[in-house]
Amino acid sequence: MTVSTTEASSSGGESTLDWIDTRSEARAKAGLSRRLRPRTSDSTDLDLASNDYLGLAKDKRVAGAAAAATLKWGSGSTGSRLVTGSTELHAELEFELANFCGSQSALVFSSGYMANLAAVTALTGPGTAIVADQHIHASLIDGTRLSKADVVVADHCDVGKVRHALETRGKRRAIVVTDSVFSVDGDIAPLNELHEACRATGAALVVDDAHGLGVVGPGGRGAVAEAGIVKAPDVITTLTLSKSLGAQGGAVLGPSRVIRHLIDTARPFIFDTGLAPSSVAAALTAIKILREEPDRPERALTVAHDLSNRLKEAGFQVSTPTAAVVSVRAPSPEQAFQWAETCRTSGVVVGCFRPPSVPDQISRLRLTARADLTEADIERAVRVIRESAASAGVESRPR
Amino acid sequence: MTVSTTEASSSGGESTLDWIDTRSEARAKAGLSRRLRPRTSDSTDLDLASNDYLGLAKDKRVAGAAAAATLKWGSGSTGSRLVTGSTELHAELEFELANFCGSQSALVFSSGYMANLAAVTALTGPGTAIVADQHIHASLIDGTRLSKADVVVADHCDVGKVRHALETRGKRRAIVVTDSVFSVDGDIAPLNELHEACRATGAALVVDDAHGLGVVGPGGRGAVAEAGIVKAPDVITTLTLSKSLGAQGGAVLGPSRVIRHLIDTARPFIFDTGLAPSSVAAALTAIKILREEPDRPERALTVAHDLSNRLKEAGFQVSTPTAAVVSVRAPSPEQAFQWAETCRTSGVVVGCFRPPSVPDQISRLRLTARADLTEADIERAVRVIRESAASAGVESRPR
Repeated sequence: MTVSTTEASSSGGESTLDWIDTRSEARAKAGLSRRLRPRTSDSTDLDLASNDYLGLAKDKRVAGAAAAATLKWGSGSTGSRLVTGSTELHAELEFELANFCGSQSALVFSSGYMANLAAVTALTGPGTAIVADQHIHASLIDGTRLSKADVVVADHCDVGKVRHALETRGKRRAIVVTDSVFSVDGDIAPLNELHEACRATGAALVVDDAHGLGVVGPGGRGAVAEAGIVKAPDVITTLTLSKSLGAQGGAVLGPSRVIRHLIDTARPFIFDTGLAPSSVAAALTAIKILREEPDRPERALTVAHDLSNRLKEAGFQVSTPTAAVVSVRAPSPEQAFQWAETCRTSGVVVGCFRPPSVPDQISRLRLTARADLTEADIERAVRVIRESAASAGVESRPR
Repeated sequence: MTVSTTEASSSGGESTLDWIDTRSEARAKAGLSRRLRPRTSDSTDLDLASNDYLGLAKDKRVAGAAAAATLKWGSGSTGSRLVTGSTELHAELEFELANFCGSQSALVFSSGYMANLAAVTALTGPGTAIVADQHIHASLIDGTRLSKADVVVADHCDVGKVRHALETRGKRRAIVVTDSVFSVDGDIAPLNELHEACRATGAALVVDDAHGLGVVGPGGRGAVAEAGIVKAPDVITTLTLSKSLGAQGGAVLGPSRVIRHLIDTARPFIFDTGLAPSSVAAALTAIKILREEPDRPERALTVAHDLSNRLKEAGFQVSTPTAAVVSVRAPSPEQAFQWAETCRTSGVVVGCFRPPSVPDQISRLRLTARADLTEADIERAVRVIRESAASAGVESRPR
């Protein structure tokens, strides 16, 4: 087909992107328009939506170290990690991350998204099969799309399906890709069983522990450490520095040869500017605090269970948390939106997840527990969520 | 094919990733192994390798604002921009970026890589053709790979080829994707001609101005502003905050409907943690300095031309800079590496670009000019590069 150009050229380019308006109207009708709601620095809202599970993003020690690092090292890393973007601070964080989590080696990225793209693409290729859990994070999905590998999507947390896909694969090399704690519902993957399936079939296991680090495992060392497989020669862990660690960035942990391979070949590492020194220092200080205050992760878990139990008692469909994420189902995208909006008007900020951010097309409120929430905070949250449900027409069946 | 699992299972997973060692040995033999060289904070090396074109990454005003923002807003943005990751600082930076560059609207990302993935994927789909310059940045290439669109790669800076591809495309919608200033050689794309070809065929133009911003155009407003097309309804510009602005992050600039579309649909926006407040404040302050000191970009250009001219006189194959990047050809990857290493030993840090970081498989030194380099710095640089060439066996033919 050759495209007729008369119409476009006469419009001066103004009609070229008109298709965007059509899409936008369709989303508005479906209740799926989004907008940014910038926070103020002095807000007194109760935050049940961030991923700051340990309350460290506003900890004065973390912020102080980040500020000091900016003054010492500058506001940016100035280049790719392979050129001028690696400082001694980056090396120190990589050593500490590996040391804290128990892996052989670590590599820091500018985001968890980039760490996932790097791990999946660098470990695969046309000669590889990828078996991916159906509910993996968008960044892992994008990694599989970039990978040129054969991709099989297995039913959520179904180890039998994963093993079958591995056994019947048409490629010699294979990796299994999963979240540890799934970001939307907060449920946890059967990591030991997945690792056994990998072992039995000569595959490697790639686990995104973004929502496990700082909450799950011994002293918050994550779900991969909890499963006892963090040192395994065929396990690769990815992390974010922007959740429990209160900073920004991501990391890949694993055997040293994997880390060296990423340095040599991973495009999202080679072609990206290194993480800013400020964020590197923040993550370093957060790890130090985790070592000094090993009860913080437990407190975040306790808060999550309290929230979940009280909302179940109030009659909502609530997930049973395995980490800090608590998911509450809503009947429709519109009602989820209305419910979350009413909570916000009442001073409680909750996450509102709608398509395409939900793997199963079911809208929900996503609540996150924080180690620094008080009893009074939890009571206030449950009261506001209950009252807001009524005004959004969301039914509940109290026990 | 069903894979035999006996060997793998008996090894306890240790042999699963053995293929990595084979690849690693092949790279070592080809002179393509890389390693990280962490900088110290008190180095007296002369930096000709970073992308800190205006010398703002260590400017006390920029670092001071970044440190203050960390103390006020915390060390991380705590969530996706759509949940808790947008602060008033982010909104202010988006307003200022659009205002400074002259576009209708702007959206900030955690890196330029993510901004490019977002722009290319959100503006395309199975019903779209992409025509991409052969030398575009890796992040734009990854965007085209993720896009599900028909992708045509056009010869470098060949407008005729681009136009032909647009006219004979099999899809109604189309975008042309290019860097403004190409990152490896520092040459500049024919933006006006590309825009005309887009206009004539109903396509949109996506320009990565990462290496143009702060160096090219009126007061450093970039190559797209210089071409006079930044306000066009069919032009989308992507930027980094980590080069001339001395911070971290990226941005997409364009018509407001494009920005709203990215907020609603771009996976690298929706599923990523927002940029840390520190980096947002650094970029904001850098723009303020650019407004107050409009001669900085000109100075970076002058330094680039001085470097290029003196190295040409010394007999090397040197690019003629259109921005701050100066490229010097090397005969082989091994010699490029040796040349750069010897420069470093003599206190001058230069970039060494080898496959796969070079679009044409030709290795080179990549020098970057900075606005804060002195005459003495330039003389020292040229002397060291010349002396190091000799010891690396790189021939020169002085004029």
